[in-house]
Amino acid sequence: MHGFRKLIRLDEAINRFVGILEPIKETEKIHIRESLDRVLARDVVAEADIPPFDRAAMDGYATRAEDIYDADPENPKVLRVIGISEIGKPFEGKVSVGEAVYVHTGSKIPIGADVVVPIEYVDVVDDEIFVRKSFAPGDNISRRGEDISKGTKVLRAGRLIAPEDIAIMKALGMRYVEVLRRPRIAVMACGSELVDDPEELGPGKILEYSREIVIGYSKKLGAEVIDFGISPDSEQEILKKIQLAQTQIDMLITVGGTSVGKHDLIPHIIRKYGELIFHGVAIEPGKPICAGKIGRLPILGLPGLPVATFIAVRTILLRAIERISSIRGRFRHSTIRAVLGRRIWSKPGIRTYVRVKLIRKNSMIVAEPIMIAGSGVLSSVVMSDGIVEVPEGSEGIEEGKEVEVILIRDVSTV
Amino acid sequence: MHGFRKLIRLDEAINRFVGILEPIKETEKIHIRESLDRVLARDVVAEADIPPFDRAAMDGYATRAEDIYDADPENPKVLRVIGISEIGKPFEGKVSVGEAVYVHTGSKIPIGADVVVPIEYVDVVDDEIFVRKSFAPGDNISRRGEDISKGTKVLRAGRLIAPEDIAIMKALGMRYVEVLRRPRIAVMACGSELVDDPEELGPGKILEYSREIVIGYSKKLGAEVIDFGISPDSEQEILKKIQLAQTQIDMLITVGGTSVGKHDLIPHIIRKYGELIFHGVAIEPGKPICAGKIGRLPILGLPGLPVATFIAVRTILLRAIERISSIRGRFRHSTIRAVLGRRIWSKPGIRTYVRVKLIRKNSMIVAEPIMIAGSGVLSSVVMSDGIVEVPEGSEGIEEGKEVEVILIRDVSTV
Repeated sequence: MHGFRKLIRLDEAINRFVGILEPIKETEKIHIRESLDRVLARDVVAEADIPPFDRAAMDGYATRAEDIYDADPENPKVLRVIGISEIGKPFEGKVSVGEAVYVHTGSKIPIGADVVVPIEYVDVVDDEIFVRKSFAPGDNISRRGEDISKGTKVLRAGRLIAPEDIAIMKALGMRYVEVLRRPRIAVMACGSELVDDPEELGPGKILEYSREIVIGYSKKLGAEVIDFGISPDSEQEILKKIQLAQTQIDMLITVGGTSVGKHDLIPHIIRKYGELIFHGVAIEPGKPICAGKIGRLPILGLPGLPVATFIAVRTILLRAIERISSIRGRFRHSTIRAVLGRRIWSKPGIRTYVRVKLIRKNSMIVAEPIMIAGSGVLSSVVMSDGIVEVPEGSEGIEEGKEVEVILIRDVSTV
Repeated sequence: MHGFRKLIRLDEAINRFVGILEPIKETEKIHIRESLDRVLARDVVAEADIPPFDRAAMDGYATRAEDIYDADPENPKVLRVIGISEIGKPFEGKVSVGEAVYVHTGSKIPIGADVVVPIEYVDVVDDEIFVRKSFAPGDNISRRGEDISKGTKVLRAGRLIAPEDIAIMKALGMRYVEVLRRPRIAVMACGSELVDDPEELGPGKILEYSREIVIGYSKKLGAEVIDFGISPDSEQEILKKIQLAQTQIDMLITVGGTSVGKHDLIPHIIRKYGELIFHGVAIEPGKPICAGKIGRLPILGLPGLPVATFIAVRTILLRAIERISSIRGRFRHSTIRAVLGRRIWSKPGIRTYVRVKLIRKNSMIVAEPIMIAGSGVLSSVVMSDGIVEVPEGSEGIEEGKEVEVILIRDVSTV
C-alpha cells in the first residue's frame, strides 16, 4: 500500500469518472462506405420496401394459384406460357386465366400471378405446360417488403456500424449517413527522467513507452489521438498542456506521476486547479490511478508502470471511451473458459488481474499464471494471452478451477 | 438442393482454397507508431536489457547487504547517508562500507549497493539512519534485464501487432519495424440487374449491396480493398476484370453469379479459363460458393444473397485473408455461451448457421433463433447478435441445450 489514504473500488472509480464525461453530440455526414466502425447518430428508418417488388424464390412458372388449385399427377392443369421474366428484364404484361410466365429465381413476378410452380412439378410441351401439383397463393415468392417493410426502424442511434449495416443502408437507397464525430483524446506522459528518442538517453534517463499502450488502444476503440508527448515533473509545464487541451479535446490521459511521492504531480495539480474525484483504486496492478476535471477537461491519470497502465486501459479507459463515443451498449471483452493451471493469490478487498498464458492440453485449455509479478515487466503482458480477474471479495482462485479468461489479442495461437 | 452435382464439406472447401493462396512475403519498413494491427515480418530480438540498469523497487535506502546482515530492532545498524538517487538524476558516486543513498522507486541503484532497505525499516537521525531489519542482496531492486534480457526473442514474426507490442518495441529502442504489406483484395459484384446508384433504378433493376459485407469485413481484417464495382452477366466483361486483377491483386472476390442456372458465369468462367477447385459447399445458407484460379489469381465466388454472402465471409473469407496475411495463429471468433431458446432444425450432412438474438433472462443468456429463414433477408443478420453453428453430423439442436454463439458485433447490448 503506497500510502494512499483510501482506495476506492474499481466499479466506483469507473462510475465516478464516467459520470463526469460528456457524450459526444456533434455529428458529421459521411459516405456510407466510410462509416465502418463509426457511431450512428440517428435511427435509420426504411423509406422503401426491400425487396422493392415480389420476386420468384425458385426457377419455375408464375401463375394464378386458383387456376391450379386441384392439379395432381393424374389430373395435371394445362397453362399457356406467354413470356419470360428475367432478372433485370421483367415480363411487362399481365398473367390472365390459364396463363403462366417462366421466372428465374430473383426475377420479378408479373402482374396477375400470385404463385410460382417450381420447374420440377411441370412438364413442358411446346408453349404449354402441364402442372402436376397445386400450390397456395404466395408459395415460392419473396414478397415485396419481406426483408424490410417501409417505416421499419432498421438501425438504432448509437450503433457501432458493422459491414452488414453499411449493406442494409445501401439497400435502403442511402448514400450518406450521419455519424457522431470521433472522440478526441490527448495523451501525455509525465516524468523528468523520460525521453522519446533512444539518442537522448543519458545517465538516469529512460525511454518512455507506457503511453503507447494508451495510444494504441484508444485508436482501436475508434478515438482520434493527439499525442502531447512527454512533460517533465513541472506543475507549470503540465498546466500549459492542460490549458492547450481545454478547447478541442474530450479527455486527457496522463501516464505516470500518479504514485504517492514527491513527483506525483497529477493528482496534486487536479486537486489544486480543479476537482479530484478519486486517487487510488483498489486494483492490482494499477492502484495509483486518479481522475478529475480541470475547467471543462476530464483528466484520467494512469500509472506509468506499463502493466499497471495496461490494466487501467483495459478496465477504466475502455469504459470512458465507450461513454464519450455515445455508443449504445458496451465494448465486448472477448473471453474464453479455461482451467487454472496454478493457484492465484490475491489480497481481499483488491480487484486483482493476473496475466495468463493459455496452453492446450488434450481437449482442455489451461490458463497458466505468469509469475513475474512486477508492474514494470511489460514482457509479462506481451507473453500472455489473457488476464483473469479475481474479484474483491476473494483471496484468490484454486488450481484446477474453471475461470473466464479475458483475451488480449485478436489472433489466437492456442 | 440447387442442382449441384456434388457438395463438398466446408472444412474441405477452406482447405482447398487456402491451399492455392500465396502468403505475402513482401515487406515494408514503417514507424512503430504506424504498425498497429499490421503483421510483423521478422522476429524482434532485444538488443539491450530492460530495464537498462538496476532500479529501486521501493522508496528507501540503497546499501550493501553485508553491512546490515545482522540488523534487528534490538541491534539496529547505523549507516551514513551520502546522497540521493532521483529518477532522472542518479547518484554518481559509490556506496562504500557503512554508507547508504536515499532512492526513489524507479531510480538508479548506485555503484556498490546491492539492496534497498524500505523506509519503514529505518529511523533517520540527521544524516545517519538506523536499519532495524536485515535484507538479502537484490531485495527491493528491479534488476537490469529483469523485464527483458538482451538477446531474448520478444515478438515472433507473423504476430499481429498490438498496442503493448508497440510499447515494447519502443522500450527496446526501435523506431521502425518491418511489417508485411497488407493483402490487396479486389471485390466485384456480378449481375445485369444490379445498380449501385438509387437513381439508376428502373424496371427489374435492384440495388447491389451484398458486396459491402465483403468490403467491410476485408477492411476489418486488415486488407486493402479495391472495388471493381458491378459487372454485367457477360463473360467478356468479367474476363476483362480478371485480366486487370492479374498483376497487383492477391485475391478476387466475386459476389453473385454462382448459383446453378443461366447466369452463373463465375464457375463457368473459372472452369473454362483456369482451374475450378470446387463449386457448391455443404453449408446453409451459402451453398453456391465456388473457388479456383485463373492465371496466378485466386478467385473466390460468393453467393449474392446477402445472408449467404455474410456466412461465406465469416467462414471462408476470414481464413483466406488470414492465410494471405501470413499471420501466425487464427483470427479469433468472439463467442459466448447461451441456452438455446427454441429447437433448431438442420439437414444432416449440411453445416448450418442459424442467426440468433441474445436475450438476458435473469442470470441466463438465451439465444433465440431468428426464424425468417431466407438468405435474401439481410435484416435477419442486422437484427441478430450472433450465429450458432450446427455441425454436419447433426439434425439440429434441442431447445434448452447450451450452445456456443459466435458473436457478430464488437459491442454488446445484452
